[in-house]
Amino acid sequence: MCRWLAYSGPAIQLSGLLTRPDHSLIDQSRHARENIETTNADGHGVGWYGEDNTPGVYRDTHPAWNDANFQHLADHIHSRLFLSHIRATTGSPVQRTNCHPFTFGNWLFQHNGLLPEYGKLKRQLLFDVDPDLFPSIEGSTDSEALFYLALTFGLRDDPPAALARTIGHVERARKAAGIELPIEVSACVADGSRLWSLRYSSDNQSRTQYHSRHIHALRDIHGTYEPLPDGAVIVVSEPLDEMTDHWQAVPESSMLAIEDGKTKVMPFSPE
Amino acid sequence: MCRWLAYSGPAIQLSGLLTRPDHSLIDQSRHARENIETTNADGHGVGWYGEDNTPGVYRDTHPAWNDANFQHLADHIHSRLFLSHIRATTGSPVQRTNCHPFTFGNWLFQHNGLLPEYGKLKRQLLFDVDPDLFPSIEGSTDSEALFYLALTFGLRDDPPAALARTIGHVERARKAAGIELPIEVSACVADGSRLWSLRYSSDNQSRTQYHSRHIHALRDIHGTYEPLPDGAVIVVSEPLDEMTDHWQAVPESSMLAIEDGKTKVMPFSPE
Amino acid sequence: MCRWLAYSGPAIQLSGLLTRPDHSLIDQSRHARENIETTNADGHGVGWYGEDNTPGVYRDTHPAWNDANFQHLADHIHSRLFLSHIRATTGSPVQRTNCHPFTFGNWLFQHNGLLPEYGKLKRQLLFDVDPDLFPSIEGSTDSEALFYLALTFGLRDDPPAALARTIGHVERARKAAGIELPIEVSACVADGSRLWSLRYSSDNQSRTQYHSRHIHALRDIHGTYEPLPDGAVIVVSEPLDEMTDHWQAVPESSMLAIEDGKTKVMPFSPE
Amino acid sequence: MCRWLAYSGPAIQLSGLLTRPDHSLIDQSRHARENIETTNADGHGVGWYGEDNTPGVYRDTHPAWNDANFQHLADHIHSRLFLSHIRATTGSPVQRTNCHPFTFGNWLFQHNGLLPEYGKLKRQLLFDVDPDLFPSIEGSTDSEALFYLALTFGLRDDPPAALARTIGHVERARKAAGIELPIEVSACVADGSRLWSLRYSSDNQSRTQYHSRHIHALRDIHGTYEPLPDGAVIVVSEPLDEMTDHWQAVPESSMLAIEDGKTKVMPFSPE
Repeated sequence: MCRWLAYSGPAIQLSGLLTRPDHSLIDQSRHARENIETTNADGHGVGWYGEDNTPGVYRDTHPAWNDANFQHLADHIHSRLFLSHIRATTGSPVQRTNCHPFTFGNWLFQHNGLLPEYGKLKRQLLFDVDPDLFPSIEGSTDSEALFYLALTFGLRDDPPAALARTIGHVERARKAAGIELPIEVSACVADGSRLWSLRYSSDNQSRTQYHSRHIHALRDIHGTYEPLPDGAVIVVSEPLDEMTDHWQAVPESSMLAIEDGKTKVMPFSPE
Repeated sequence: MCRWLAYSGPAIQLSGLLTRPDHSLIDQSRHARENIETTNADGHGVGWYGEDNTPGVYRDTHPAWNDANFQHLADHIHSRLFLSHIRATTGSPVQRTNCHPFTFGNWLFQHNGLLPEYGKLKRQLLFDVDPDLFPSIEGSTDSEALFYLALTFGLRDDPPAALARTIGHVERARKAAGIELPIEVSACVADGSRLWSLRYSSDNQSRTQYHSRHIHALRDIHGTYEPLPDGAVIVVSEPLDEMTDHWQAVPESSMLAIEDGKTKVMPFSPE
Repeated sequence: MCRWLAYSGPAIQLSGLLTRPDHSLIDQSRHARENIETTNADGHGVGWYGEDNTPGVYRDTHPAWNDANFQHLADHIHSRLFLSHIRATTGSPVQRTNCHPFTFGNWLFQHNGLLPEYGKLKRQLLFDVDPDLFPSIEGSTDSEALFYLALTFGLRDDPPAALARTIGHVERARKAAGIELPIEVSACVADGSRLWSLRYSSDNQSRTQYHSRHIHALRDIHGTYEPLPDGAVIVVSEPLDEMTDHWQAVPESSMLAIEDGKTKVMPFSPE
Repeated sequence: MCRWLAYSGPAIQLSGLLTRPDHSLIDQSRHARENIETTNADGHGVGWYGEDNTPGVYRDTHPAWNDANFQHLADHIHSRLFLSHIRATTGSPVQRTNCHPFTFGNWLFQHNGLLPEYGKLKRQLLFDVDPDLFPSIEGSTDSEALFYLALTFGLRDDPPAALARTIGHVERARKAAGIELPIEVSACVADGSRLWSLRYSSDNQSRTQYHSRHIHALRDIHGTYEPLPDGAVIVVSEPLDEMTDHWQAVPESSMLAIEDGKTKVMPFSPE
């Protein structure tokens, strides 16, 4: 399974969260603590918003910890809103087009999770993507299919509603296909100013997801990284340090919305 | 546009045709003569039959001429039936899963050509693929879609008939979509003992395709490569040397079939 | 042979010069006009200065024209001083560490040229590098060796003098080894605020090198790209457009120095 | 740290040892048991002898477990003598030229180990390589330097003596540089018919190394792989199964020589 991080707040150097902390996303990719696979070495990516409406995206298939380009970019790009992802494939090919985050227009999407027995669902779900959007699909993952379904179901107009419809649609497809294993979704989506994350699974045993609790606590750590600025929020699939009181778990079946430095947790039900 | 080569005959070292001749497939990838694009640097691949039913396949996204692995494999693999391809993308991503030859079971397929305005046809053509085959599609090219359509339309039972049905199907889809540009197909398919190639375009102005004329002629050249053995046939998108009397053009709208060292040319019409 | 570009001036989007112009560095990599090799597909790179002292560097081994990461970075990074390079190897392996620009501390270096019969010189030249610098050499090219020799001979104190000593040193090594083919150097070096370029060959038949002549001329073109800002200077191995009066050839055996928007041409002699 | 395997015996399909066994070299690369690093994802390679004097070599920088090319080659290449390696870098760049096995003429070499503080030794050790061999060095690892030192000290005439001289030479260099950390070497070398492996460390606390004990035992396992043929010997850095009585540890400070199916263990002292 994958790992991801999202940041919203005053512009910071990406390396502050991605490569420098003692337990940064890169460290996580080598030494997982809370999840199942021991390694996340099947590609990585970062998407960031700068001066333009559309995000920049860098994705590569090498392990993040030995990708000198990624180190350089993390050191030299500053951003007020960025997403980063480390991939552990469950079967689909290791290629840049299967790395997260995915982008469409001003949107970014990344995911840690699984549509079980995806081979049985793939054709149907792709067929349900808006035909005008279909040709933009570049890779072969269940995650990219989820993103395009969400775009089909109205992501650009109302993200929480679109995600509820998307998950509802996939749940119905899963049941129709007689698949008993649960869907697991820990997803994150951004439009350039706002960010939403979703924690959901069919059986209420979702993968972990956290957001930073209060930023002053982080400032007190005498660790290897800079204090975060006021108004910054981090969302992660796994905490960046051992101080668990710095991190607040996003509850089961919830969505987290971040806008102007404010976080809001909403219950989530598939529609 | 791409370039390709296929060999059928007594087992030879792959390098004899792929890397060593003065105008080998690798030379072709740097310096095109008969076709349009100046370079073929968007990936390459080779598929070969050895002791097993299923072929071995090596594909990489780097230019063939600087891929040390390819040089090594060409020097150390001997095969009685192999296909090799150099890619020049017309838009789809450069990734191994988009490199030719494609494989399914004991079959290999490679292609130099174009389904015009493929974005308008892609969704339709993919959904015409047999649902049981659909999950095996790994990449995003029109060529792989053609291969899976051919499998859907009976390639494993009757290759010439299946290719006629496939091209007929695509021609109808093209017209239904109001696409005026012609389909261009120079394809090659093998099942482990037999090999077929197809030269076709909607407007009878197909890309070039040749097969070696008679092998004794080749033996007379005092060139840089070994004489080919008796019973060997080479099919190429472009001749391997300047001696045009060594190469016989495959006629417009034809299929070439090779079995047990014998070549047969058949007229081809979409069905 | 390679191609390169350098920009100094008010901060601009990298894509303005690297990917968007009708005859951008990327176009050049596919269709060379003034130099010998037909293609530059053996890797590429860009180094840029932003808010930090040290430059960011992105290098990859795929052809620039199909590298989605490069397109994204060029669209999203703004810089007041950047270098970019497209590689055509003359033999050393295609790997990121052999791609230009090379970096050390706050310095960037890129090169189009050749030390002839480098195998005969390599060991000697590498052992002439300052032992403290030696472990930082990562790749295997003659270009990186030139950069480290220049650092050894005082690049950080007096770039023109260090380059004169470096070329003089290499010329003596070449003669001592009995190599008759000439050295060819079209190099570019930057320290974060200043930029120098060198045009030199042993036989006074150097590769081309140009700088933009006057920026107002460029502004008059009704082409595909934005006018350049005042004070901008571009140095290139080949002009970016067909308007030759926009480009001033750097004379044989000269160095060009750019600082605060001012260009100065100095005669160059190996020392 | 790395892991490796070597096979000598009647020709078998590479996949029998590399990809199919329950605890094959690929499994090892994901889930290490006896060594330190948790993952080996920084490249891999295989070198094999077939009909030619010189070996074929395939090396790639992606994790072995998701490299479809490697899976295909392992399934389709048969060899009577092959070496395979999974890399975990301790700092040098992840690139094909740094992947094992290294090759020179008919020789193959692979290594799991470390020359400590190699930055202090690198220049000296490279300088001690035979100047005629020096230009053939392509990468930047301590392992490749060891191989070229061994070639310099007579590997092609007397492998055990050359390795003793090489290690003696490196030990003297280490002491002269004031490095206190021990050298650790678990190396393997082959010439096309014979195979030698070396287990050594300065402090007699070497990394593990094993050879298959007797092949009939392996045949009794009702596991996922075929029985090995008579006369086959496997040498590994870590056993391929949990049945420790199938594997004999190579003693500290020893060399193992394999020729014509016979294994011989010799004490090893640096010279």
